[in-house]
Amino acid sequence: MEEAKGLVRRVHLVKFKDGTPPARIEEILKNYANLVNLIEPLKSWHMGKNVSIMNLDQGFTHVFEVTFESVEGLAEYADHPIHTEFSKQTRPHLDKVIVITYEPTVFCT
Amino acid sequence: MEEAKGLVRRVHLVKFKDGTPPARIEEILKNYANLVNLIEPLKSWHMGKNVSIMNLDQGFTHVFEVTFESVEGLAEYADHPIHTEFSKQTRPHLDKVIVITYEPTVFCT
Repeated sequence: MEEAKGLVRRVHLVKFKDGTPPARIEEILKNYANLVNLIEPLKSWHMGKNVSIMNLDQGFTHVFEVTFESVEGLAEYADHPIHTEFSKQTRPHLDKVIVITYEPTVFCT
Repeated sequence: MEEAKGLVRRVHLVKFKDGTPPARIEEILKNYANLVNLIEPLKSWHMGKNVSIMNLDQGFTHVFEVTFESVEGLAEYADHPIHTEFSKQTRPHLDKVIVITYEPTVFCT
């Protein structure tokens, strides 16, 4: 299986706190999506709400897929002040989160 | 945020059992990847090994992304005898798994 050279993807599974107002969640999603316009090495951003009926979802409500041009690009993103501020504003609203970083077998944008 | 009409994606986070031989894992990965050639509504398949250093990965070792043409296509895949047999052969080797189904904001293949 061929790996896309250098590209790095992160999948976040997130459960927002029950008490977070839907309007605040929408604001967070818009701000998160907008990072792709503000932080150069962040090449693509996708999300979706969990609609699983398999009962294997551990209560996670959202999936986010973010793709970077390289390991160095991911590091630049992680330390970028705009990302740091976004994380600081968002973290209090998260009940739980899983983050997996990987090099996908085939690149998709 | 625009949703890709009708398309459905599943993300699986998987931790293989410590006792599963690497060669058996490789065989499972090859068989899993090959489902895209055998089950028509399965439109794309990607995977990656976890390389996260964030300590938010709960020990999951692999990510799989599988994309379907529709909710009906996902149902057809889920019940397909080739998929059922693959699942039956694979399940004993899984320590834990999370499955999230969602409609991605932008389609990627």
